[in-house]
Amino acid sequence: MNNFTFHNPTIIHFGQGQISAISQAIPADAKVLVTYGGGSIKTNGVYEQVVEALSGHEWGEFSGIEPNPQYDTLMQAVQKVKQEGYNYVLAVGGGSVVDGSKFIVAAAEFDGNPWDILAQGAALQTALPLGCVLTLPATGSESNAGSVVSKGNDKLFFFSPLVQPAFAVLDPQVTLSLSARQVSNGVVDAFVHVMEQYVTFPVNAKVQDRFAEGLLATLMEEGPKALSTPQDLKVRSNIMWSATQALNGLIGVGVPQDWATHMIGHEITGHYGVDHARTLSIVLPAVLKFKTPQKQAKLAQFAERVLGMQAGSDEQKASQAIAKIEAFFQSMEVPTRLSDVDLGADNIDTLINSLQQHGREQLGEHGDIDIATSRKILELAC
Amino acid sequence: MNNFTFHNPTIIHFGQGQISAISQAIPADAKVLVTYGGGSIKTNGVYEQVVEALSGHEWGEFSGIEPNPQYDTLMQAVQKVKQEGYNYVLAVGGGSVVDGSKFIVAAAEFDGNPWDILAQGAALQTALPLGCVLTLPATGSESNAGSVVSKGNDKLFFFSPLVQPAFAVLDPQVTLSLSARQVSNGVVDAFVHVMEQYVTFPVNAKVQDRFAEGLLATLMEEGPKALSTPQDLKVRSNIMWSATQALNGLIGVGVPQDWATHMIGHEITGHYGVDHARTLSIVLPAVLKFKTPQKQAKLAQFAERVLGMQAGSDEQKASQAIAKIEAFFQSMEVPTRLSDVDLGADNIDTLINSLQQHGREQLGEHGDIDIATSRKILELAC
Repeated sequence: MNNFTFHNPTIIHFGQGQISAISQAIPADAKVLVTYGGGSIKTNGVYEQVVEALSGHEWGEFSGIEPNPQYDTLMQAVQKVKQEGYNYVLAVGGGSVVDGSKFIVAAAEFDGNPWDILAQGAALQTALPLGCVLTLPATGSESNAGSVVSKGNDKLFFFSPLVQPAFAVLDPQVTLSLSARQVSNGVVDAFVHVMEQYVTFPVNAKVQDRFAEGLLATLMEEGPKALSTPQDLKVRSNIMWSATQALNGLIGVGVPQDWATHMIGHEITGHYGVDHARTLSIVLPAVLKFKTPQKQAKLAQFAERVLGMQAGSDEQKASQAIAKIEAFFQSMEVPTRLSDVDLGADNIDTLINSLQQHGREQLGEHGDIDIATSRKILELAC
Repeated sequence: MNNFTFHNPTIIHFGQGQISAISQAIPADAKVLVTYGGGSIKTNGVYEQVVEALSGHEWGEFSGIEPNPQYDTLMQAVQKVKQEGYNYVLAVGGGSVVDGSKFIVAAAEFDGNPWDILAQGAALQTALPLGCVLTLPATGSESNAGSVVSKGNDKLFFFSPLVQPAFAVLDPQVTLSLSARQVSNGVVDAFVHVMEQYVTFPVNAKVQDRFAEGLLATLMEEGPKALSTPQDLKVRSNIMWSATQALNGLIGVGVPQDWATHMIGHEITGHYGVDHARTLSIVLPAVLKFKTPQKQAKLAQFAERVLGMQAGSDEQKASQAIAKIEAFFQSMEVPTRLSDVDLGADNIDTLINSLQQHGREQLGEHGDIDIATSRKILELAC
């Protein structure tokens, strides 16, 4: 395995009733801005629990952070923070609310044009502290340093340890009110996060491989159960902890990483508004098929260890593994082809132009997915 | 799974050459006391690397921390810290040096009799910052909050997040100079740490179970290789990362834990000076045999997932699993019976009296291993 530095300081409060932990987790003298999305937290009991936990604190709220959080919306929150003097942000929601709140805590303290944080990768000197109550297990944003923010058709991202949440409350109970579509998207998003860090080429990193395989096996086992028995809290608990572990940095230390599926998927969301996870379930099979020769060893290992396939050559195992991944996505009721979301060959030029504009010309763990290769992958995904 | 709070803030610098990272990891204005053991770091190049990395810092040194670090030795270091005004401790060594240094950073700032930290579990208000360069993968002490300190025949322990290392350098290269005995002990110690958190009873914690199984499989695979091909750096890398993950808190969140093997083993070390890991390889098989009815489900799961056994009843799988664990210990050249270290029935009274004196009357994940049960376990271990 390769050299690495790993640091994940986020404090996790996991389990039923843990929202009450925020009363101690946030300093008593903080002035807290609670950020959230479209208001579902007001119908599922989360908002009340947060309000109760904050009863000793001075606090206000900012709602309306969208899925694929928009720069212009977030800048309204930044203005509110500055005008009203908030010095702590508590994100209550899914990955979009957490990602958006990461941008808010960065931009509120940024000396310059906040757009540069996204467009130029401008370095942060400081940021407000951030905590979160996660309501949708999916992105892993609750305990990492990354954030994806949109402006119009553009999905941009930034990373800074300064915006990593100080704490995250993970109460699986609150995920019981999610729609089937949200659950599916979350499981698939987490699954693809693991694949991006695992299905590359072997570097003899046995712990990272086995942890990744453990997460993949758990998500494939529990994902369909979350749809068939949606009130099973044990299932939701295992999914929630898997999704956090999938992108908290641990399984990715010292190993090559791919992320081509995410980069291509972001363009599909940016231009056609397809849910993030559903772009991944469309693009990943095509990436795996196109790159099978390079990824064969890890696909075969996945087939053996996670799917229990022992017979056949590595080539056969790899091909069967991709078929099983597609079947898993179908069992999760997400699309696996562009045609499933009414897109096709006619849309590829738009996506390719956008990849080019965003400079995504060396994707994948070998940096060899150029624009022409991305076009072939999208053609395979039709 | 059960509710939990998880926090592991230690920064890990992993890989060849990472000792140089301490120059940045320790504040420039710190006055650093480098603590180490018997001087092996002076013959294997580690000392020179540390000295070079500290060239911009004011620093001194304290050597002579023993295996099973002794209270009286550590108090000499505490005196040195106070007299000479050190405000940072850098532990360079294995688990004993790290554990001992945890006590030093606690006692140096403790307002009262430092003995109470161990004897009374006195709460700490503050501690000096601690970093470490790990030279022997085994205890996990490099990224946890626990410490075991000895005084005469007594092995005592304390926990405080204040003594958890701020950073840990894990360079597998430095482990190549370890003796076969040290390598064996380290692998076995890490293996038993995982078993203590895994072989209890199922609580449907799928991620924790699979992470634990991944570590067990890796240690069983790589441990014997470390003895047969002692210069293989890849093997050492996987062992080193496994040992850290085995006891950094992650696999133990939200699940029952046992630790009876450790409690009984500590008495054997305390009274007869048997290496810590070798007490574990003696006691664990007896604990597993005696408690098979309660542990059968997890033993069978271990047999299936780690050992690949598919045939037979759970009872048969559990029994075969214990036999395989003993065989693994034998392949690591560690004892599995008291008689292997020239102890036997005659020594049990001493050990039992000591367990009683230390109040270890409710051991195990059910708290049902009383003194009479510990006696039966020791009889089984003869």
